[in-house]
Amino acid sequence: MTTVIDGKAAAASVVEAVSAAAEKLETLGHRRPGLAVVIVGNDPASHAYVGAKSRMAKQCGFNSIQHTLPEDTAQDDLMALVASLNADPEIDGILVQLPLPKHLDSDPVIQSILPEKDVDGLHVVNAGKLATGDMDTGLVSCTPAGAMILVRQIHGKDLSGLNALVIGRSNLFGKPMAQLLLAANATVTVGHSRSRDLPALARQADILVAAVGRPEMVKADWVKPGATVIDVGINRIDAPERGEGKFRLVGDVAFAECKPVAAAISPVPGGVGPMTIAMLMANTVIAAYRRAGQTAPKF
Amino acid sequence: MTTVIDGKAAAASVVEAVSAAAEKLETLGHRRPGLAVVIVGNDPASHAYVGAKSRMAKQCGFNSIQHTLPEDTAQDDLMALVASLNADPEIDGILVQLPLPKHLDSDPVIQSILPEKDVDGLHVVNAGKLATGDMDTGLVSCTPAGAMILVRQIHGKDLSGLNALVIGRSNLFGKPMAQLLLAANATVTVGHSRSRDLPALARQADILVAAVGRPEMVKADWVKPGATVIDVGINRIDAPERGEGKFRLVGDVAFAECKPVAAAISPVPGGVGPMTIAMLMANTVIAAYRRAGQTAPKF
Repeated sequence: MTTVIDGKAAAASVVEAVSAAAEKLETLGHRRPGLAVVIVGNDPASHAYVGAKSRMAKQCGFNSIQHTLPEDTAQDDLMALVASLNADPEIDGILVQLPLPKHLDSDPVIQSILPEKDVDGLHVVNAGKLATGDMDTGLVSCTPAGAMILVRQIHGKDLSGLNALVIGRSNLFGKPMAQLLLAANATVTVGHSRSRDLPALARQADILVAAVGRPEMVKADWVKPGATVIDVGINRIDAPERGEGKFRLVGDVAFAECKPVAAAISPVPGGVGPMTIAMLMANTVIAAYRRAGQTAPKF
Repeated sequence: MTTVIDGKAAAASVVEAVSAAAEKLETLGHRRPGLAVVIVGNDPASHAYVGAKSRMAKQCGFNSIQHTLPEDTAQDDLMALVASLNADPEIDGILVQLPLPKHLDSDPVIQSILPEKDVDGLHVVNAGKLATGDMDTGLVSCTPAGAMILVRQIHGKDLSGLNALVIGRSNLFGKPMAQLLLAANATVTVGHSRSRDLPALARQADILVAAVGRPEMVKADWVKPGATVIDVGINRIDAPERGEGKFRLVGDVAFAECKPVAAAISPVPGGVGPMTIAMLMANTVIAAYRRAGQTAPKF
């Protein structure tokens, strides 16, 4: 029987641990964790994400503050807001929702966040800490951190002797995921659009992680029998069978055909997706503990 | 015929380009590049390395300054020296020779160097820039940067479709080397002591890079016929045939038996070794150009 990895349940368990940790921080005499979420403009999808993050932060018992800036906000004004949040002693985590409107340059904004408040794990200092294996003072990008929790559910903490293939080499996911797998002692290969014979590479992987944004690219004959398959893709495809103009979400893995070959597989939706927001909460409580001079919980 | 990669010639060509770039910087109305080398204590090997670096810096036309501190230097005094070098407008690059005496903690010293003066490429900001593919503002660790030049001699700049295996996952070499190969479009695997069946992994590699510090570990039957083999190991082994107490240097690759299988192979000594110091000079001239507001040369 193939294990279908339940990302919702795993995320709920992280959120429960975060809430308990937030409560414990108050009993230790500190204030509750503070998360500032910044959104610029009117993109409906971004507002939906930000709304979900703010609700989840409240559910975790955080002090959650949302800053909504108009579409025509100037770069300097956004930078000034980040600077004030950096200086705010009540704020442990700062999240600037991406993408920003086109006239704004996101990288200087992200790099201006204090690394210890960068709960999205996007600052170059956090990338460098992850790249050099410093897990004790850095903050790890949320989606790979969440995907690793799913991998650990199946294989435990030590991946010695296991071959992992990460398909995709983005800064947001592929590269940090490879570093996390390597830190857990896996033998890690990063494949991508310029790789020769991805199916053959995939067939050698005990842990196959797909993050390319190509609907159902990974087929049954790519999967090593008994492998763990982690699907990070979220692709909208037309679903005329559901009615005109309707769509459905699929991953980068052809789930139905790969499931019988794998020993464990994460579905889309309901796999890695819910973990991202849970790990944002985890990073925020970690940042709050560190700021309070307390030993941060591990997730 | 197997190509034996001539690291001495490649290093000489880098040094020549560095010297020309340093001279050009003066003709552009700027001062020559300034490199500060800091050494603490009396370790003879460290003094030999530092001497070689200072000589090479002079050969490149740099303003080279060596600070020699006593064995019992306090952490604060070393940090204060680094701070003064950070503030010194004549200094473009700062190198603190490692290892430091045991009572000193090297990491805070290295992390206190301004990233733009960190010509050894060891600062977490430079690690993060490399990890996120920012080659335009960061400084890359010298040994992997040098090894990449040897790889490029054989394969050119674009490694699309080639499989690379890096054996070893150190912060100094294995991890940054993997990132450089990935940035050049190779499909990159990192193997290490916890990997299952390294020989089988190695046999799939078009580019095989060994950096583990185990004398002649890579045998002929590890090498894919026609592969490029880059040997980063420098191991001292006893050589009683040369007389009592004599030793010789060997790499991590059993050169004599691997050479007929490979299409190109770097020897030890005379392969990657000479590249490290050449890339230190390259990083220094790059840092000087950036500081002068000029477009830095590429190596």
